Amino acid sequence: MGKGEQTREAVLREALRQSSNVGLHGITIGVLADALGMSKSGLFAHFRSKEQLQVDVLDYAAGCFERLVVLPAIQQSRGEPRLRTLLDRWLGWGGFSDYALPGGCIFVAATTEFDDLPDGPVRDRVVQHRERMNASIARMVRSAIAEGHLREDVDPEQFAYELNGIMLSYLTQARLLRDDRAAPRARRAFDRLLDQARELAATPSG
Amino acid sequence: MGKGEQTREAVLREALRQSSNVGLHGITIGVLADALGMSKSGLFAHFRSKEQLQVDVLDYAAGCFERLVVLPAIQQSRGEPRLRTLLDRWLGWGGFSDYALPGGCIFVAATTEFDDLPDGPVRDRVVQHRERMNASIARMVRSAIAEGHLREDVDPEQFAYELNGIMLSYLTQARLLRDDRAAPRARRAFDRLLDQARELAATPSG
Repeated sequence: MGKGEQTREAVLREALRQSSNVGLHGITIGVLADALGMSKSGLFAHFRSKEQLQVDVLDYAAGCFERLVVLPAIQQSRGEPRLRTLLDRWLGWGGFSDYALPGGCIFVAATTEFDDLPDGPVRDRVVQHRERMNASIARMVRSAIAEGHLREDVDPEQFAYELNGIMLSYLTQARLLRDDRAAPRARRAFDRLLDQARELAATPSG
Repeated sequence: MGKGEQTREAVLREALRQSSNVGLHGITIGVLADALGMSKSGLFAHFRSKEQLQVDVLDYAAGCFERLVVLPAIQQSRGEPRLRTLLDRWLGWGGFSDYALPGGCIFVAATTEFDDLPDGPVRDRVVQHRERMNASIARMVRSAIAEGHLREDVDPEQFAYELNGIMLSYLTQARLLRDDRAAPRARRAFDRLLDQARELAATPSG
């Protein structure tokens, strides 16, 4: 990694840390420059605008998530082991020492920040990363179906929808309510989701 | 309702509308006074501090949720009809004409705003309202068990955890991704949650 790349990475890491606390709207090139002991013009050499910085922070966070959560799952065998590792790593997300997010998941924060705003480069990027994540879960579900671990009529997008819900509820329960049972509850919900995706469909009741 | 009460209600309604866009930290007594054509000192007569205003906005929003979502559910017969009405009304929350929230659910926004902050009157109130909501869902589940609609070994708090997840995923899917399938997906997930709470427990696999 060249010096330029190293600086860029340090800036993005600090910008991500700050925006996990104050939101993507809350980061300013001035505060960021101060925290890093850099000049504002030095920062502008890396990020032409605040909007560009916000987009790059999202890409950087998505890259970390990919590396720390998605890749370790993909390294497991296809099907259930892969899905379970995804859950394990995802529950640990935010607590990894090389990627501390004091203020919580940037994508969750960015969702409430940008969901009511008109289209724009930053909102579009939040959407893109969310959709990529959903597609990635759906792919793992498809491979679990192909392995015969899950039923053929399981809807991969519905599975992704529900897994997202389990994780969002986990974040509320763990971070806001500081509830020790948050992770066990997430695991139970996930087991239930898997169980039902394995069983024969319930007989429709009259 | 006396004139003082009417003014208070108008202020809270506008403060809630604004904080649904800019967060509870984003509302200022100055901007609020301008929007309402009131003087800052007039506003201070109703809310002694910004913190008090934030707490009152949360109470006001919780009161609206109670009236528009929880009460209509409680008016249904105990058990499944009550839980289904809860879901229906909850999915409509935010779209009711007398309670428009352009920026989305204030409790979801307040969760990402306050989850990483130290205890304080506003954070405590967010927690209180979340816990009250969970307790309210759990009570409905208990009455569904008592009616024989759900199995006796269903965990009411786990049910509340998972229902929260379904709703949080719905908000992301509907508001950020603008996905028309968000509500049908929420209903499917809810049906699955109910189905599994009705069926006999799955035989544990070796």
